[in-house]
Amino acid sequence: MVNAGAMSGSGNLMDFLDEPFPDVGTYEDFHTIDWLREKSRDTDRHRKITSKSKESIWEFIKSLLDAWSGWAVMLLIGLLAGTLAGVIDLAVDWMTDLKEGICLSAFWYSHEQCCWTSNETTFEDRDKCPLWQKWSELLVKQSEGASAYILNYLMYILWALLFAFLAVSLVRVFAPYACGSGIPEIKTILSGFIIRGYLGKWTLLIKTVTLVLVVSSGLSLGKEGPLVHVACCCGNFFSSLFSKYSKNEGKRREVLSAAAAAGVSVAFGAPIGGVLFSLEEVSYYFPLKTLWRSFFAALVAAFTLRSINPFGNSRLVLFYVEYHTPWRRKTTKLGKYPVLEVIAVTAITAIVAYPNPYTRRSTSELISELFNDCGALESSQLCDYINDPNMTRPVDDIPDRPAGVGVYTAMWQLALALIFKIVITIFTFGMKIPSGLFIPSMAVGAMAGRMVGIGVEQLAYHHHDWIIFRNWCRPGADCVTPGLYAMVGAAACLGGVTRMTVSLVVIMFELTGGLEYIVPLMAAAVTSKWVADAFGKEGIYEAHIHLNGYPFLDVKDEFTHRTLATDVMRPRRGEPPLSVLTQGSMTVEDVETLIKETDYNGFPVVVSRDSERLIGFAQRRELIPAIKNARQRQEGIVSDSVMYFTEEPPELPANSPQPLKLRRVLNLSPFTVTDHTPMETVVDIFRKLGLRQCLVTRSGRLLGIITKKDVLRHMAQMANQDPESIMFN
Amino acid sequence: MVNAGAMSGSGNLMDFLDEPFPDVGTYEDFHTIDWLREKSRDTDRHRKITSKSKESIWEFIKSLLDAWSGWAVMLLIGLLAGTLAGVIDLAVDWMTDLKEGICLSAFWYSHEQCCWTSNETTFEDRDKCPLWQKWSELLVKQSEGASAYILNYLMYILWALLFAFLAVSLVRVFAPYACGSGIPEIKTILSGFIIRGYLGKWTLLIKTVTLVLVVSSGLSLGKEGPLVHVACCCGNFFSSLFSKYSKNEGKRREVLSAAAAAGVSVAFGAPIGGVLFSLEEVSYYFPLKTLWRSFFAALVAAFTLRSINPFGNSRLVLFYVEYHTPWRRKTTKLGKYPVLEVIAVTAITAIVAYPNPYTRRSTSELISELFNDCGALESSQLCDYINDPNMTRPVDDIPDRPAGVGVYTAMWQLALALIFKIVITIFTFGMKIPSGLFIPSMAVGAMAGRMVGIGVEQLAYHHHDWIIFRNWCRPGADCVTPGLYAMVGAAACLGGVTRMTVSLVVIMFELTGGLEYIVPLMAAAVTSKWVADAFGKEGIYEAHIHLNGYPFLDVKDEFTHRTLATDVMRPRRGEPPLSVLTQGSMTVEDVETLIKETDYNGFPVVVSRDSERLIGFAQRRELIPAIKNARQRQEGIVSDSVMYFTEEPPELPANSPQPLKLRRVLNLSPFTVTDHTPMETVVDIFRKLGLRQCLVTRSGRLLGIITKKDVLRHMAQMANQDPESIMFN
Repeated sequence: MVNAGAMSGSGNLMDFLDEPFPDVGTYEDFHTIDWLREKSRDTDRHRKITSKSKESIWEFIKSLLDAWSGWAVMLLIGLLAGTLAGVIDLAVDWMTDLKEGICLSAFWYSHEQCCWTSNETTFEDRDKCPLWQKWSELLVKQSEGASAYILNYLMYILWALLFAFLAVSLVRVFAPYACGSGIPEIKTILSGFIIRGYLGKWTLLIKTVTLVLVVSSGLSLGKEGPLVHVACCCGNFFSSLFSKYSKNEGKRREVLSAAAAAGVSVAFGAPIGGVLFSLEEVSYYFPLKTLWRSFFAALVAAFTLRSINPFGNSRLVLFYVEYHTPWRRKTTKLGKYPVLEVIAVTAITAIVAYPNPYTRRSTSELISELFNDCGALESSQLCDYINDPNMTRPVDDIPDRPAGVGVYTAMWQLALALIFKIVITIFTFGMKIPSGLFIPSMAVGAMAGRMVGIGVEQLAYHHHDWIIFRNWCRPGADCVTPGLYAMVGAAACLGGVTRMTVSLVVIMFELTGGLEYIVPLMAAAVTSKWVADAFGKEGIYEAHIHLNGYPFLDVKDEFTHRTLATDVMRPRRGEPPLSVLTQGSMTVEDVETLIKETDYNGFPVVVSRDSERLIGFAQRRELIPAIKNARQRQEGIVSDSVMYFTEEPPELPANSPQPLKLRRVLNLSPFTVTDHTPMETVVDIFRKLGLRQCLVTRSGRLLGIITKKDVLRHMAQMANQDPESIMFN
Repeated sequence: MVNAGAMSGSGNLMDFLDEPFPDVGTYEDFHTIDWLREKSRDTDRHRKITSKSKESIWEFIKSLLDAWSGWAVMLLIGLLAGTLAGVIDLAVDWMTDLKEGICLSAFWYSHEQCCWTSNETTFEDRDKCPLWQKWSELLVKQSEGASAYILNYLMYILWALLFAFLAVSLVRVFAPYACGSGIPEIKTILSGFIIRGYLGKWTLLIKTVTLVLVVSSGLSLGKEGPLVHVACCCGNFFSSLFSKYSKNEGKRREVLSAAAAAGVSVAFGAPIGGVLFSLEEVSYYFPLKTLWRSFFAALVAAFTLRSINPFGNSRLVLFYVEYHTPWRRKTTKLGKYPVLEVIAVTAITAIVAYPNPYTRRSTSELISELFNDCGALESSQLCDYINDPNMTRPVDDIPDRPAGVGVYTAMWQLALALIFKIVITIFTFGMKIPSGLFIPSMAVGAMAGRMVGIGVEQLAYHHHDWIIFRNWCRPGADCVTPGLYAMVGAAACLGGVTRMTVSLVVIMFELTGGLEYIVPLMAAAVTSKWVADAFGKEGIYEAHIHLNGYPFLDVKDEFTHRTLATDVMRPRRGEPPLSVLTQGSMTVEDVETLIKETDYNGFPVVVSRDSERLIGFAQRRELIPAIKNARQRQEGIVSDSVMYFTEEPPELPANSPQPLKLRRVLNLSPFTVTDHTPMETVVDIFRKLGLRQCLVTRSGRLLGIITKKDVLRHMAQMANQDPESIMFN
């Protein structure tokens, strides 16, 4: 007999089961997991612990520890993700300022920290505190004039190139998986796909370091998507410490879903938005238990971040996203030289960005300025309005005023910055460095929104007798808020790119604290989704997943074609029949030959080739070691031995060799559908139960098999045949 | 031949299908729908419209209208739900004030509206505007003194009794389904159960009217749960206007999920919280499309409510929930006399509530006062602190101060109110009137929280050298905010009752606008869930659903027992064999006898009794009309006619009567599992695919059947056998 020790169950019910799910190996790389099986294995483990817990106090304590390990993992993930996000924030601050100058008292201080203790009282003076030296001041002792400007410009470009070069080299050499935002891959992994190393320790380390480098280099990208990836790496790391999660790919994915929530939570300082993002955008299997745990992880992470970085550079800590136009980029020749590409794009970005104040500063500062309304104390160029000298109102409620010179200059610069940002963002994404699209999209939307807002404001000021303004915009009232237009524009642009709705609105108002703007934000989110859907239903993640050909069965795609299982199953008409095993008539050699000649993941087992009545399914990766094992250790097993999957050995001629019992590797509950089952139902079953394959029968006879890849291929075919049908969902 | 006109398909693929899903009748009352079947029917409808739309412009426009009808329904639901909520708010305001007095200028004005135009400038004076007369002023021209107090007291009780009597009579006579909050039933309905009339027009009308009455009567209940029920009635009404929704129970439930979100949205003024509530608490099948539509409906509803009731009595518009302790109440003798019960509870409530200022006012006002912090202008008794005469600080940042006499009085009154509220709330729920538990729970939590908050504040003031206070509570600082304690207490109490987490926090901060309190609120929600779960995993809804014995398969219950399909399926060992039909050997009379003698919902169809190979499943409610039809209209069909389910008639002796083809009513893709399938997987399949029944096979032979009720019964059995196992989820 094959050794079947490890899993021999405890209850009576287990006995006749004959261990249908032995714990053989793990999945291979780039394969899909079997959710039902993982779940079943977890139940086994859980039952074993529960029954053991009654035996002794030690076992009871162990069972309690096991029950709480889920929360422990969440706590650890929250702590580490929050810490990393805090460290990244601080490092980015310092290195961004390093491009402009250095702190004499301590070189590791950022501009703000350097001048923190300075005695100058006004904001402008503090910016010019003597401890902080621009490069021109340090190197040629000049702070004004053309030569100082050119030197600062050069240093800015040099540092940017250095950071970008370091980042792309690190990614190339140590962790190729660290590039991009990682969200599409995480989505695919969460849906049950295996990509080894994608969430590994090297990826974690390199992505954290290079993220700091690329953000500091001033490239047009955000750190939010990568932060989600970093948090998921943390989740993967901690789940490998607990056998409950490390040995079960299904349970591990529950942890990863929560880690994604923690990632968004720290990226934006938006814990609830993070949970919703994980639910709406990323996760595949999201039971309520995971909802609560995600909530906890997001909370801990946000709290940790706040403790580390208490002054919080701005509440507008940022977010995520990725590859905007990879379909276009995939064919460029430059793409073959990733380092050169990064250097070129960085050089162009730095050269063009420096002269324009709206592109020189960091994108998050830009967004923050665009969102802010003009108070009386605001010194921004955007707030250079002509004040009424007779005005004696309180500071916070300023009526609409005519725009001054500064506003018109700002409008021009914003328009140029907008064009530049759109173009350079397209070229930045898809490069082999960590990059997110959230902040650039928000910036584009916010710039456009602010410009529209100022336009409407000036229209309303100069033409307050127009019908559209008359009822709500009296002269002297504050009826148009350009900052709100910027916020709505940012939400709309982001919604169009990612097609998030609910989580987007929650994140926006966690970001801005603007609870009163919920109605315009919701309207913007819904409208931008409608408009974007008219161009095509795919959000940026789905497009990326399709582009890379990951086997992802999207919950959002509806399958509405009237095909049947029989149209999709293999073998098709004319193809050789399905490779099956019989329950008690094939020899070891027959099976070995079959395994050698085919590369299927498993074989259905039938009563006999004539009746074709299905009794179970045997996985290739369980069959091979079982036969090998038996040949080595079990006496009397030779090539002519008959293999049987029944309880009792079949009746054999007297002189035949010892038969080999393999019921242990037989899955007695394979999933079946009839050949008349509509494909719509089959797609639903694959999606909801997370199957890898499904057998097709008619009147109890085995006809064929449908795998996840068959389903995906068929869905793609049908979508191409009838593209219009998508419209009517 | 049976007439099979209506469904004859359009594509080639349809031809050999032989219409597996004819549109026969609807489901019976108190039965469960078949989600897969409903979905399949919708796909058929959808395909027909799509293929027709290519024929003419008119059909194309019709297909566009069909595609947009979902959004149209959402718009209508949002508009009606918002309007009803606004009207209810205004009516409750007026009738609540009617218990104390009346407006002389217009009797339909509430106290606030009556004094709105009054010239008195301070708040206290405005409350005493001459147009508003207390009953004692009107009737005996006295506004002070013992007799005036007693008269007002009596009038208060009389009005309360009148309102309560009217409400309970209306519910009893016209719409028994209007009682309670309705959330548990809506949950059950959304999971696929049919309760006719529960969401009908009468229920809508009566529930709206009686809700105003019971809230005005001052009973300890909230209007939020009932508002969700009202919104769902609106949803049901509007979905009956569009054939897409009225003819498909599955699609109708998508609309109802969105309507529930709209209901919470208006109950609380919390649109995002509403969507989350629908997702987390109420809905069963919640595809992303429904998420977006819910979002839209919630937005429209909140917007409509704000337009109708622009002054918004307070931002703390309230919420929902229900039956606190039905298990205790179910056996009281008083329960048999619902009218008497309501009168008695109302009388006690009114008598006890009037003398205490914290119970006399409406509960939402109470919560609002408890949440508010003490500003310098606050006149509330709770803010009667001893001010430092030397204090010259700005108004908003008041340091901790010693409590004055008013605060101590308030503490006593709050303690008494707390006890009263807990006791009376237990007795109020389960009465035959519309009632929600949200507000009473929040009030209990807020009272307890505020008391703790004041206690900690005084401790910190008098003992700021204690270790726990030393680091963050310097003398003269504002370090304890009792209002925040109240808010956290309310969230914790509500979380304990309903086990909401994410949606609870979102609702709380949409309610209070307190975005900065997100961390304490989240911590309270998670902690209260943990503590409450230690006493039992069931929230109040689930408890109610179990109590009423609805067939609800909860997504939250995890089934972790190692039983198999064979342990649950019927027939069990020793029971008579399963009633089956054969595909081509039974006569019409045989089948009619079988139908008469059994009450099963359907019968499996097998090749023959010997082989037991399953070919399909025939529903009782389709078999009966098909046979009846054939007997009436088809020539040659007599009792001895052989019935066949195959494509071709079986070979019969020469003189046998004309056979009857019934393939049309055969479902060729019944759901099957093998007898070795773990029950865990079976439960998962039932839950995720929304099945009504599932056939059990072994090696292609039919062994038995498992229905949803069998699954629920088995889960209950296993939970009773092994209650400990619940702990370790």
